[in-house]
Amino acid sequence: MSCYILKIDCSDSKGLIYKISDILYKNDLNIEKNDEYVDAEIGKFFYRALISGEVNAQKVEKELRECMPKDVNISLAKKTKKNIIIMVTKESHCLGDLLLKNYSEELNANILAVVSNYDELKPLVDKFDIPYHCVSHENLNRAEHEEKVLAVLKQYDVDYIILAKYMRILSSDFVKHYEQKMINIHHSFLPAFIGANPYKQAFIRGVKIIGATAHFVNDNLDEGPIISQDVINVDHEFSWKDMQKAGKNVEKNVLSNAVELALEDRVFVHGNKTIIF
Amino acid sequence: MSCYILKIDCSDSKGLIYKISDILYKNDLNIEKNDEYVDAEIGKFFYRALISGEVNAQKVEKELRECMPKDVNISLAKKTKKNIIIMVTKESHCLGDLLLKNYSEELNANILAVVSNYDELKPLVDKFDIPYHCVSHENLNRAEHEEKVLAVLKQYDVDYIILAKYMRILSSDFVKHYEQKMINIHHSFLPAFIGANPYKQAFIRGVKIIGATAHFVNDNLDEGPIISQDVINVDHEFSWKDMQKAGKNVEKNVLSNAVELALEDRVFVHGNKTIIF
Amino acid sequence: MSCYILKIDCSDSKGLIYKISDILYKNDLNIEKNDEYVDAEIGKFFYRALISGEVNAQKVEKELRECMPKDVNISLAKKTKKNIIIMVTKESHCLGDLLLKNYSEELNANILAVVSNYDELKPLVDKFDIPYHCVSHENLNRAEHEEKVLAVLKQYDVDYIILAKYMRILSSDFVKHYEQKMINIHHSFLPAFIGANPYKQAFIRGVKIIGATAHFVNDNLDEGPIISQDVINVDHEFSWKDMQKAGKNVEKNVLSNAVELALEDRVFVHGNKTIIF
Amino acid sequence: MSCYILKIDCSDSKGLIYKISDILYKNDLNIEKNDEYVDAEIGKFFYRALISGEVNAQKVEKELRECMPKDVNISLAKKTKKNIIIMVTKESHCLGDLLLKNYSEELNANILAVVSNYDELKPLVDKFDIPYHCVSHENLNRAEHEEKVLAVLKQYDVDYIILAKYMRILSSDFVKHYEQKMINIHHSFLPAFIGANPYKQAFIRGVKIIGATAHFVNDNLDEGPIISQDVINVDHEFSWKDMQKAGKNVEKNVLSNAVELALEDRVFVHGNKTIIF
Repeated sequence: MSCYILKIDCSDSKGLIYKISDILYKNDLNIEKNDEYVDAEIGKFFYRALISGEVNAQKVEKELRECMPKDVNISLAKKTKKNIIIMVTKESHCLGDLLLKNYSEELNANILAVVSNYDELKPLVDKFDIPYHCVSHENLNRAEHEEKVLAVLKQYDVDYIILAKYMRILSSDFVKHYEQKMINIHHSFLPAFIGANPYKQAFIRGVKIIGATAHFVNDNLDEGPIISQDVINVDHEFSWKDMQKAGKNVEKNVLSNAVELALEDRVFVHGNKTIIF
Repeated sequence: MSCYILKIDCSDSKGLIYKISDILYKNDLNIEKNDEYVDAEIGKFFYRALISGEVNAQKVEKELRECMPKDVNISLAKKTKKNIIIMVTKESHCLGDLLLKNYSEELNANILAVVSNYDELKPLVDKFDIPYHCVSHENLNRAEHEEKVLAVLKQYDVDYIILAKYMRILSSDFVKHYEQKMINIHHSFLPAFIGANPYKQAFIRGVKIIGATAHFVNDNLDEGPIISQDVINVDHEFSWKDMQKAGKNVEKNVLSNAVELALEDRVFVHGNKTIIF
Repeated sequence: MSCYILKIDCSDSKGLIYKISDILYKNDLNIEKNDEYVDAEIGKFFYRALISGEVNAQKVEKELRECMPKDVNISLAKKTKKNIIIMVTKESHCLGDLLLKNYSEELNANILAVVSNYDELKPLVDKFDIPYHCVSHENLNRAEHEEKVLAVLKQYDVDYIILAKYMRILSSDFVKHYEQKMINIHHSFLPAFIGANPYKQAFIRGVKIIGATAHFVNDNLDEGPIISQDVINVDHEFSWKDMQKAGKNVEKNVLSNAVELALEDRVFVHGNKTIIF
Repeated sequence: MSCYILKIDCSDSKGLIYKISDILYKNDLNIEKNDEYVDAEIGKFFYRALISGEVNAQKVEKELRECMPKDVNISLAKKTKKNIIIMVTKESHCLGDLLLKNYSEELNANILAVVSNYDELKPLVDKFDIPYHCVSHENLNRAEHEEKVLAVLKQYDVDYIILAKYMRILSSDFVKHYEQKMINIHHSFLPAFIGANPYKQAFIRGVKIIGATAHFVNDNLDEGPIISQDVINVDHEFSWKDMQKAGKNVEKNVLSNAVELALEDRVFVHGNKTIIF
C-alpha cells in the first residue's frame, strides 16, 4: 500500500479541516500524519497530510475542490523520487554532500545532471556516474551564457534545481523559468551580508556568530523565501578564511536540510515566506 | 470571546480527526490551531486544539465522549491562569527567574507560595509579596519532614508544583500526591549524570557539553518524563565550579520553558515520555 | 594574597611574551593564566594575565613600559568590583536578570543606580534598594533630555553604563562621554535588522533564526564593537510578538554574558572589533 | 620558511612560560601563536605554540629539556600531513565525509587505507583510489579477527586510526597497540547511552536532544577521553530510526571536527580528559 502526500492551500474559512477529513474518511483513507497552519493576518490556510489506503487521486481531488474555497491549490500524489539538477562553480563541499547522500539512498531524489561554469568538479561527479555539463561563461555576456545553460537544463524534466555554491548571479529572465523550483545556499545568515564575499563582510564587522541560509531563488538577489538557516560561533582569532573554512560544514548541512524538506513536499511558499511542516 | 483549550488522548482508530472536527463544526466553534500525533507503535492518539466561539463545554465533551474510543481522556477548559507553588532550597537563579517572569506577567500563573527547607531565600521572595514557608528538615527523618511539607502544600489548591532546585530527594509516598503535577529541574543532560553533583561528575568525565533537564517527577529519581532540555559548550578550562556557574543560565531557561509549556496545557504525558504541542 | 589583572596592548614586535614573562618572573610573580593574540593583519598585540604574588603595580608597570613599544597601553590592577549604572525604558527582563545576578553576588559589580525615561520600573528597582532616577523626555528635545540624563550620571563614578533595553537613540555628543564604557543590547542578530522593531523586520523577512547582540555603543547606531551574540530557532508559526517574547530570554542572556566579560576585564576593543579572552 | 608546532607538557612550576619564551627568543624564533593551560588541581602544565623562523629542532628541544621539570614531554616538528587509516563497517556517512574532505584537500592527512569487516563500502572507497581491505569476522573469534586486522594495519606506518562507525568492540589487547592513536565516533551524547543502539535507548528514554561524541579509544568501551561532542533537538515525532537518520549529520560533523583537531596537533590527553588548543 503506497503512501500519498496531500497538500492544500487556500484562503481560510470555517470548517476546512472538517471538510477535508470528512472526504478522506468517506473515501476510506487513513491520515497517517497531518499538519495545518492558518496565517490569520493574511487569512490563508495551509495543510499537508500523509495518507494511506487505496487512493483514487482524481476522485479525491475533485471532491475536495468542490467544497473548498475557489482559490484552492491541491496536490495529491504518491510519494516518489524527485528529479533534480545540481549547479556548481568550483567548490565541492555542498555538491559532495548531496552526491554522497544520494549514493547512500538518503535523498528522495534522482540526480539527473550536474551543471557548472567550470570543469573543476567534473572528476568528482564522474566518480558517481552522473552527467556533467560544463557551460563556460568565458567571452559570453550574461544573457548569452544563461541561454546556453538553459538549453542544457531544458533537456531534462526537472523538479528542483539546486544551486550548490553556483557563484554567478542569475537574471530575472532566467529565474522565471524555475520559480519556486530553484534552491540556493547563501554563505551568510541572511539578511546579514547580502552579496559578494559575506565571510569578509562578517570578518570586517567583527561578528561572533556566522551562518548560512538556504532559500528559494526569486528576482532579487539573496531575498527569496528562506527554507533553512544555521549558525556557528566564531571569535577574534578567525580570519575571514578561517570563517570560510568553518562555514563550509554549515553551508552543506543547511543546504542538504533544505533540499530534503523540498524533496519530501514539506515546504509551502507564500509571498516571501515558507511554511514548513 | 474566550479561548478554550481542548485536549484529547485515546487509543488510535480511524476517523478520529474527522469525528472531532465534525462535532466542533456542528457546535459552530472555530479551531484556531490544532495539533495531533499518533504514536503508531503503541496505537495511541493525542490531540490539542485552541478553540474560539460560544463553547458549551459540557455539551461538547459529552458529544465527543460518545463517538470516541472508551479509553478517551478529554479536557476542555477556558484558558486561565494556573496555580503554582515553587519549592526551593538555597539557590536563587531558577526561583528568581520565575518570580520576575510572573512579576512582568509573562507567566500564565498565580504563584501561591514558595516552600523551602531553609530560610535563605525568604528575603528575595518577600520582595515579591508571596508567602514563604520554611519547613526545616533538621532533626526530622524523611517521612516526618515530608509530612510537614505536605501539610503546607495541602493548604493550597495547586495545579503544578515547581521544584526550582529543591535539593532533597522525594519519596514515592510524597510523589504520588502530585503525579504529573511536579516539575523538577535536574542540572545535567539526563540520563547522563543522574544523582548528586552532576557538574562534578561531568568535570570528572571530561565532557565538552553540559546541560539541564526539566522533567515530571515520578517514583524514580531523575527518571521521570522529560519536558525540556538544553546544553552549553564547555572546555578543559572549566572547573566543576565554573560548570556550575555557567550551568545556572541553562537551568533557569530550561525550567522556565518547561513551566510555560505546562501552564499552557501543551504537554501530554504517556508512560515515560511527553508529547508537546 | 590578591589576584591582579594585567592587560597590555601595543604594536606587535618580537619577543613581547618573553619580555613580559621575564619581568613578571623577576618580580617573583606567578602567572595563573594568560592569553595573548596577535592580529597579524594590523600588527597588533593583545595580552591579558591573571597574576598572583606580592604585586608592586607601579614598579611592574614602569618596567614593562620601558621594554615595550611606545604605543603600549598597560593596566595592572587588583580584581575588584566595578561600578555600573543600568539604563532602561519600560521592559524588565534584562534589568531584572542583572538585579537578580547582583543580588545573589554572581556579578562582579556594584549597581550604583538605575536611570530611565519612564517610571514603570521603579517598583521593581525599589525592591532591591537601588536608587532609581526617572528622567522623562517629555517636552524636551534630544539635547535637552540628554543633558538632564548626563547630569544624573555625572553624580556617579562609573566604570560601565549598561543599556538594558534603553529605547532612545543616543547622540554622538552623549556617547563621547562614555566611550567603550556603554554596553547596549540590540534585539537582533546584528548586522541584520538594524534600527527600529527588529522582530517585525525579522517576521516580514521570514527568517528561521532570530538573535540578540550586545555591543559597545559608538557614534553609529547599532554599529559598535560586538561583544556577544546568540540565537534561537523560530518557524512560520511565530508572529512578531511571539518572536519578541521568545527573544527576551536571548536578550537577557546575551547582555548578562557581555556584562560579565566586561566586568572581569576580559574585553579589548580595537577599531570596530573586540578581542575577548 | 616552514611552520613548526611545539608541544610541551610537564608538572607545573614557576616561570615555565618565561623559560620557554626565553629559549625561543634566543634562538631567534617567532611565536606565531601560543596557548597554555595549567590544571591547578593536578599541578600539570600544557603548552602549544606555532613557531616560525630557522628552527634547529634538536638544539631547541635540548635546551628546553635542560630547564624544564624532569617529567617533561616535548615534541617539536614541522607541520606536515599525518598518515591515517579509516576503519568502517557498513555505514558510509562518516567515511564519505572524510573521503570528500581529503579529496578537496581540507584534511591535513594522507588516507593510507580503509579497513572493514564487510565489503559494502569498497565501491565507494574505490572511487577515491584508496586501498580497501575487507577482513571478514565470519567464523572467527574476536582474538582471531583482531589478529588479522592487526596484520593489515601493521603494513602501514600510521599516525591515527579513525573508527568511522566501526561497529565491533575492540579488545584491550588490540587497543594497546594504538594508545591515544585511535579516534572513535559514538552515536550518543556520552556518557548517556553507552553501548549498543544508543538511538533506541534515547527513544525509549524520551530525550529531547540527541548527540554524538568523538573520543580516543581506551580499554573501557565508550569511556575514553572525549575530543568533541555536538547535539541536535528531537521531539516526540521522532522514531528511533528518525533519530538515527538525523544523527548521521551530527556524527559525521563531530568526527571530522575531532579528526581535524588531532591532525593539527591541537589535542593533549591527560588521564581521561583532553586539553584542546
